[in-house]
Amino acid sequence: MTPLRVGIAGLGTVGAGVVKLLRDNADLITARAGRPIIVTAVSARDRNRDRGVSLENIVWHEHAMALAVDPDVDIVVELIGGSEGPAKALVERALAAHRPVVTANKALLAIHGAALAEAAEAAGVTLAYEAAVAGGIPVIKTLREGLAGNRIDRVAGILNGTCNYILTTMRTEGSEFADVLADAQALGYAEADPAFDIDGIDAAHKLAILAALAFGQKVDFAAVHIEGIRRISALDISFAQELGYRIKLLGIARRTAGGIETRVHPAMVPAGNLLASVDGVFNAVLIEGNFSGPVFLQGRGAGAGPTASAVVSDLIDIARGTAIPVWGAALAALGSAQGVAISRHTGAYFLRLMVVDQPGVLANVTAILRDHNISLESMLQHGRSPGEAVPIVLVTHETSEAAVAAAIAEIAALDSVLEPPALIRIEPN
Amino acid sequence: MTPLRVGIAGLGTVGAGVVKLLRDNADLITARAGRPIIVTAVSARDRNRDRGVSLENIVWHEHAMALAVDPDVDIVVELIGGSEGPAKALVERALAAHRPVVTANKALLAIHGAALAEAAEAAGVTLAYEAAVAGGIPVIKTLREGLAGNRIDRVAGILNGTCNYILTTMRTEGSEFADVLADAQALGYAEADPAFDIDGIDAAHKLAILAALAFGQKVDFAAVHIEGIRRISALDISFAQELGYRIKLLGIARRTAGGIETRVHPAMVPAGNLLASVDGVFNAVLIEGNFSGPVFLQGRGAGAGPTASAVVSDLIDIARGTAIPVWGAALAALGSAQGVAISRHTGAYFLRLMVVDQPGVLANVTAILRDHNISLESMLQHGRSPGEAVPIVLVTHETSEAAVAAAIAEIAALDSVLEPPALIRIEPN
Repeated sequence: MTPLRVGIAGLGTVGAGVVKLLRDNADLITARAGRPIIVTAVSARDRNRDRGVSLENIVWHEHAMALAVDPDVDIVVELIGGSEGPAKALVERALAAHRPVVTANKALLAIHGAALAEAAEAAGVTLAYEAAVAGGIPVIKTLREGLAGNRIDRVAGILNGTCNYILTTMRTEGSEFADVLADAQALGYAEADPAFDIDGIDAAHKLAILAALAFGQKVDFAAVHIEGIRRISALDISFAQELGYRIKLLGIARRTAGGIETRVHPAMVPAGNLLASVDGVFNAVLIEGNFSGPVFLQGRGAGAGPTASAVVSDLIDIARGTAIPVWGAALAALGSAQGVAISRHTGAYFLRLMVVDQPGVLANVTAILRDHNISLESMLQHGRSPGEAVPIVLVTHETSEAAVAAAIAEIAALDSVLEPPALIRIEPN
Repeated sequence: MTPLRVGIAGLGTVGAGVVKLLRDNADLITARAGRPIIVTAVSARDRNRDRGVSLENIVWHEHAMALAVDPDVDIVVELIGGSEGPAKALVERALAAHRPVVTANKALLAIHGAALAEAAEAAGVTLAYEAAVAGGIPVIKTLREGLAGNRIDRVAGILNGTCNYILTTMRTEGSEFADVLADAQALGYAEADPAFDIDGIDAAHKLAILAALAFGQKVDFAAVHIEGIRRISALDISFAQELGYRIKLLGIARRTAGGIETRVHPAMVPAGNLLASVDGVFNAVLIEGNFSGPVFLQGRGAGAGPTASAVVSDLIDIARGTAIPVWGAALAALGSAQGVAISRHTGAYFLRLMVVDQPGVLANVTAILRDHNISLESMLQHGRSPGEAVPIVLVTHETSEAAVAAAIAEIAALDSVLEPPALIRIEPN
């Protein structure tokens, strides 16, 4: 059996994990793939770093680009990361050289996925990326193959473990965002520069990929509405619990009458919902197919082991000869429906105000809501502190984002409203 | 694009669902499969029954076997059911005629899966069966492809929707098994002859399939230890809740030092466990890979839509040219490790006795447990009714099935023990 020879660019924790996995599970992988899968070449920045795996008998290239043309490499695994620069150049070069590529690079796929699919299609080789979304959960395979017979109506997921860890810890410990973030950074659960995670960019990259697969569209990162979790307060998390919700950073892609909605933002999820009970660093995705019904997947979304598991599943697919179009259908068969702007979103909203506790405040607020045709499902106010600042929580019935935005602007301008109002979308089950 | 021509044997709800799905979603299936997938021939018992789908332009064969040799059929879909008789004969004939086969038949795969894989391998064609386990959840694909890089250590699942519906309803309504079963039969959630479901046979067929895939073994239905849910009482469900457990019919396949354990039985599942919260007719599977970590899948395990979704995903795979060995590796590469007898199982146990409330009873019971080296984690007894029958619940620490069985026999023989003791294994998270 001719071995499948793999060249790995980037030897961080994931790259080292792939080397280890291919070695630890070599026997069963050979049985399942029908041939051995071996690492013949690698490339990374620092040759002397101890990665916990032996690189003996593996060729070391100083430049990643050399992997794309190494005659002893059949498949290139790109684990450099980043949407531009060396990662992009390597993938383009490898595809041009008719080498299949496996990557864990969500930014690259989200931003350049259409052009790269064109290159892969032209070269007649595979570009696989199971590891780009939700780590060890085979969600790309589930959408692209397992549920391929279905029209997908909605995908909703917890796609960023750092955010989910922070929100979970804020809830269980009653702590504020900044404190939990600092602890998470100290523990290594959050990056020194956490913006990509906590501002929702990472989740949005993943959601753009899932949406393209779910709806048979060209991937369109620019269409994703993105809000992060910086403004979530312990107070809102506690009100959410009182109202029977959990606050989660969700990525949601939904088929609506007006087109495809793709959005990443903190959402109130009913406590009985499957996504509500996904805690800590776990990821999860709920997919609604028109024949399958809801299919829910949960697992580890990051880390060396789960990500290596996804990379190796792609390698085994390629060894077995499986070849699925990059976006689940040939480029010519993909649609390009207009995305729906967030201003056209409709749904229920959680609205929390800090107001001066004095007569007439609530009347002013509710008059503004009425003027914008927004009706209320419930209202919460605890205790009384005449003349002091108190929180008031309002939960609306279904209304439009445009109406809520207009109402909020007027409410924020009231003298008795002391801070910018907090607004969190409620996501139905 | 040459269409892929499908012949369907068996037009019950699932068969009609496949016809409907291929028609309703024809456009997107053509895009994803790279070619149209059309039903050209069918066969079923009653030609005149209204199935809610038009069979116009589809050839009707009086005998299913004719599908295997119809020159206008490229793939045979077997939806007749049953491990013997016409279903088996059709699959054998189709494979012999070098036709790929897609089936939803768990009994056939569990009992004759090794021989059929040999036939498929000899003919060089695919035998696919995503629909045989857990309906719309792509669990076969997840084990065979998505987690193919992992050594699988454990698979645990809720694999029978009827049992899960009955156990859920017993808990939420506090009703007894027989009453809930009768209601479920009236509602169509349970068969007129419910033995296959409630005695655990159906779940055992599915577990045998999952175990073979997980551990790279020849499928071995005879090795599965099977207990059903007939003896579960409302009393035990209520005690379970008090102790922080839910009672679920689980299928468990586990790698142990002594070999592979495969067992289907009611189990106490900690309430915080993912499987504990799967209610009603839903199915779910938890898979533990040595690199992926735990991967949890939940969805609809039966019904026309979900099962058709699984059948069609297999058809699309075949249209795309995907070809995975029936059991995930060539037959020659499969192991045949000895199964572990249930008597060698170790774990914790829930034990419920009905005893006469009189001095000395508990001392007798605990002395027997001590003599068998069984230590207790907790004990429950509510109220007192001197001279009357009262329940006593004992929860053991980890011990062996053999020790528990021996102790139970002695306890059951005590004069003060009024009924055969109820014994339920506790399944850790």
